Amino acid sequence: MEAHIMQVEIWTDVNCPFCYLGKKRFNDALIEFDHADQVDVVHRSFELDPTAPTGTSGNVIDHLAKKYGRTLEEAEAGERQLGAAANEAGLEYVVTGRDVGNSFDMHRLLHWAKELGQQEQMLDALYAANFADAEPLFGDTERLVRVAVGAGFDEAATREVLADEQRYADEVRADERQAQEFGVNGVPFYVFDRKYAVSGAQPKELFAQALSQAWGERPQPTLLADSDACGPDGCAVPQN
Amino acid sequence: MEAHIMQVEIWTDVNCPFCYLGKKRFNDALIEFDHADQVDVVHRSFELDPTAPTGTSGNVIDHLAKKYGRTLEEAEAGERQLGAAANEAGLEYVVTGRDVGNSFDMHRLLHWAKELGQQEQMLDALYAANFADAEPLFGDTERLVRVAVGAGFDEAATREVLADEQRYADEVRADERQAQEFGVNGVPFYVFDRKYAVSGAQPKELFAQALSQAWGERPQPTLLADSDACGPDGCAVPQN
Repeated sequence: MEAHIMQVEIWTDVNCPFCYLGKKRFNDALIEFDHADQVDVVHRSFELDPTAPTGTSGNVIDHLAKKYGRTLEEAEAGERQLGAAANEAGLEYVVTGRDVGNSFDMHRLLHWAKELGQQEQMLDALYAANFADAEPLFGDTERLVRVAVGAGFDEAATREVLADEQRYADEVRADERQAQEFGVNGVPFYVFDRKYAVSGAQPKELFAQALSQAWGERPQPTLLADSDACGPDGCAVPQN
Repeated sequence: MEAHIMQVEIWTDVNCPFCYLGKKRFNDALIEFDHADQVDVVHRSFELDPTAPTGTSGNVIDHLAKKYGRTLEEAEAGERQLGAAANEAGLEYVVTGRDVGNSFDMHRLLHWAKELGQQEQMLDALYAANFADAEPLFGDTERLVRVAVGAGFDEAATREVLADEQRYADEVRADERQAQEFGVNGVPFYVFDRKYAVSGAQPKELFAQALSQAWGERPQPTLLADSDACGPDGCAVPQN
């Protein structure tokens, strides 16, 4: 998980259907990429609604209708569109009955999983639990524990992380601060070696193209100063 | 340890006196840097002599004299110079009696420690064991275990990492491949957000200046494409 030649940072929220879809499309592009084994992918935290109260905000369609001033029919139609796009990419998507809510605890779990080198597994499990299953997920510690355990995480350790709301909270906020620095106002947001960015659940072909371009133009740092180093000929002060 | 605004990657070898000195001078600059809490430092592996046989290569002065065709007096004078520079920076330095050898196992330990979020502790302990103490270190598993335990690492876990030579070996090689990509032929080598680089144990003032410059000019990724994202106004296809 370390020191690959190119780093792709993906800002994401477990609440975000386009993030779920984008992850699949990006991965489809990545597995066909010639240098995939030299690409390090890291998922970073972004809360679509950091002001959402802790726990659940109730049924997703009711919530979207209320929040954006749409009718229930309009909100459901939007979800159906998202579901169709997800299905087309090979993903399951439950259109009605899911809940929505504050995702901060899930971002903490994702940072913990990253430390264990198992961030992909945690994110896939959370996405599946949220989008491919109607059972409420937000603010339900028992369900989060089941999801994590189902993805291979230790039950007691998962409970410990969930119980202490300070754990990985700084890491979540640091990701969000970084997103702010980059002017990110929507997710998914993909950053390639901090040089190029792509916003949104792009088609697989576009991700393939972005990977190629970012790879071909990956940065070479500019040397500001050179002296007093050890090299193959020993440790000597270079002649200036 | 994650997602700070600026990342500094430092290629280093535990065999390298200028790396030991550079770490102190860089840290002295970093603690006075205004945005220190937003800087993420990661130490990367570089073997000065990857062809060194596993274990110890014997006394450092004998080894340097033989390897670079110097007299023992010349080799010792070089070490005295390095020792004086280290002392001036506030570091202990044993001039004669230390050994030298293959550092691959130490790099594996450093990657393990990184995963635990304790890379600084491991590196400081290894530097001190190598440069501030005459007792042989290279290829001495028992001493490496004592050094790691003294720095707060679990004994059984340290033994496990040392016993399995495949553990973190890929990570060490990935760091070295990355160094090669950047044309690094000596260490320490400092890379700021993959945009700027500094080679060698520079004076603290130069590190301070490099930190400021890299911070002021930290990269903003160029947006290649924008669509289908979720933002504060919901999940919608942007108008192109």
